[in-house]
Amino acid sequence: MAIEITGTGKAVPPNRVTNDDLAAKMDTSDEWIRSHTGIAARHIADESTAASDLGLEAAKNALSMAAAAWKISPEEAILSLDLIIVTTATPDHLGCPSTACIIQDKLGARQAAAMDIVAGCTGFIYGLETAAGLLDINPNRKRALVIGAEILTKVTDWTDRGSCVLFGDGAGAFVLEKTQAPMAGVGKRGIFRSILAADGSGAADLTIERGGTRNPYKTGEIVDVPPHLDMNGQAVYQFAVKAITDTIDRLLKLEGLGVEDLAYIVPHQANARIVQAAAKRLRIPEEKFFLNIEEYANTSSASIPIACDELNRSGRLKKGDIIMTVGFGAGLTYGGNLIVW
Amino acid sequence: MAIEITGTGKAVPPNRVTNDDLAAKMDTSDEWIRSHTGIAARHIADESTAASDLGLEAAKNALSMAAAAWKISPEEAILSLDLIIVTTATPDHLGCPSTACIIQDKLGARQAAAMDIVAGCTGFIYGLETAAGLLDINPNRKRALVIGAEILTKVTDWTDRGSCVLFGDGAGAFVLEKTQAPMAGVGKRGIFRSILAADGSGAADLTIERGGTRNPYKTGEIVDVPPHLDMNGQAVYQFAVKAITDTIDRLLKLEGLGVEDLAYIVPHQANARIVQAAAKRLRIPEEKFFLNIEEYANTSSASIPIACDELNRSGRLKKGDIIMTVGFGAGLTYGGNLIVW
Repeated sequence: MAIEITGTGKAVPPNRVTNDDLAAKMDTSDEWIRSHTGIAARHIADESTAASDLGLEAAKNALSMAAAAWKISPEEAILSLDLIIVTTATPDHLGCPSTACIIQDKLGARQAAAMDIVAGCTGFIYGLETAAGLLDINPNRKRALVIGAEILTKVTDWTDRGSCVLFGDGAGAFVLEKTQAPMAGVGKRGIFRSILAADGSGAADLTIERGGTRNPYKTGEIVDVPPHLDMNGQAVYQFAVKAITDTIDRLLKLEGLGVEDLAYIVPHQANARIVQAAAKRLRIPEEKFFLNIEEYANTSSASIPIACDELNRSGRLKKGDIIMTVGFGAGLTYGGNLIVW
Repeated sequence: MAIEITGTGKAVPPNRVTNDDLAAKMDTSDEWIRSHTGIAARHIADESTAASDLGLEAAKNALSMAAAAWKISPEEAILSLDLIIVTTATPDHLGCPSTACIIQDKLGARQAAAMDIVAGCTGFIYGLETAAGLLDINPNRKRALVIGAEILTKVTDWTDRGSCVLFGDGAGAFVLEKTQAPMAGVGKRGIFRSILAADGSGAADLTIERGGTRNPYKTGEIVDVPPHLDMNGQAVYQFAVKAITDTIDRLLKLEGLGVEDLAYIVPHQANARIVQAAAKRLRIPEEKFFLNIEEYANTSSASIPIACDELNRSGRLKKGDIIMTVGFGAGLTYGGNLIVW
């Protein structure tokens, strides 16, 4: 039994905002943003768009690809889904209903269980392994949809010029399928090894402070800056480099693989400098890492599936290629997946 | 391989509020609340308590029981955890960090992955099956902690006398362990069958409208009623009766079991009338359902583990007993687990 990826999709809002666009409104510059982060542009959702809207569009794109592979209509593909997982740090609603249920309804995926997973920017890595586990443990579950959907620009502190330039909106999705291929050994396919990890001692380094049960809003309160990400940039940077380095090292050793066995490493796209520092520490050529942060900025748990969809649709992934995802984020969480494409 | 339950625990805040206490402050009565819901009291957290605080206490209680079974110290039990899942509709923080990461840190469970699952009041049922799947798919994962932790009274509209009497605060936890016992057939143990389901067409029937990316707070806005649950009571009632009825029927048929094979059915404790209506429709004696809503009111995804811990610690569950959990909630979601105790 293997858990294979049959379709990928992505969606970003049409409003593309360049560094120069931001520099026209605040004290920053294209040169500063590019040199510190590798970001040139980001896509920003309009006021009426929530995480589920982008997630739905990404899901439809992934389902179209899967339906073509299965030689059925997209409607039949949707009705064959047993599970929908949405990973998000920016859900449509606080607590309930889940963003997954909203997408389940809009797709018409009536047979699918639906839940959200909260694991910060590492969410999609957790989501893939969780979907694999839920398909694995029940013979009746065969097909799953995993979506990373984020509207970070609605939890961005636009008065903080150091952090507001980092984030963008977007969604990415995978359609997963349980097949008779092996999960290990010769001819193995799909998601064959994952590391999921956390270091809660850094929870305070990346938080949305207001709006939950720790610090709820009160009647009569005047909202100063709406709920937004507060980040201890230096602490997160150091954690991120170590998390990427350790995860790559452990995943390779667990499977007896070398970097040369990987077609690509697809890291969470938070900051190109983090990836460069990890590559240097591991003595891995930077070209092994697929980066598209230049166009999208940091889209949290959507960044890895967006990157994989770009790789996939551009023809750069061949069947049988091994890729590794690796990520880190709020929680703090980290981890990675090894996948035979 | 089986996923067995080695420890259970619960926690509720000390402040017990009776129906009469509420009737002293608003236009309601003990008679009305009892006859419409079966609720006599609820426990309400103070201002400084968040979901993670109750979740941590429930987790420690469950871990003490598991440690005794394993004949190790609680500290060793904590360090042996591979996974922490928190199910909550009322997280400490909106989006990040997860409540699971906060508990991971306070426990010192450094080896454990940590994530939250959002599936409304059905969360714990989803959480048990998700933990089982994640233990199942990776030989290196052996022990998991699943916690339902909720502070519903902080998302309650206290100006709505029809709904505010329904909710309470609390947390419940299970420690799960992968063992060599079988998951099916003779001598089977642990969580052996689950149904996870959703009907997103009812997403609007039970929502926290404000605070997410669909309807975020804006700078300068004055908070009227803070983020709170809005419920279409009649629609949720009808959905709930059908969801419980269908899930019990399907789970029994899938395993070729009769009601007489079950020691207890442990339903989500939302309203005693829902359970009575489902029992009547299924022609199951009401006594088969374990209810403790009288003392705790509706604690969302914490209600099932709190009820199971009470059953367990009171000695009413013998090794080898089969119980069924069944629940429904925001999303709308529903489902159930069959467990050999």
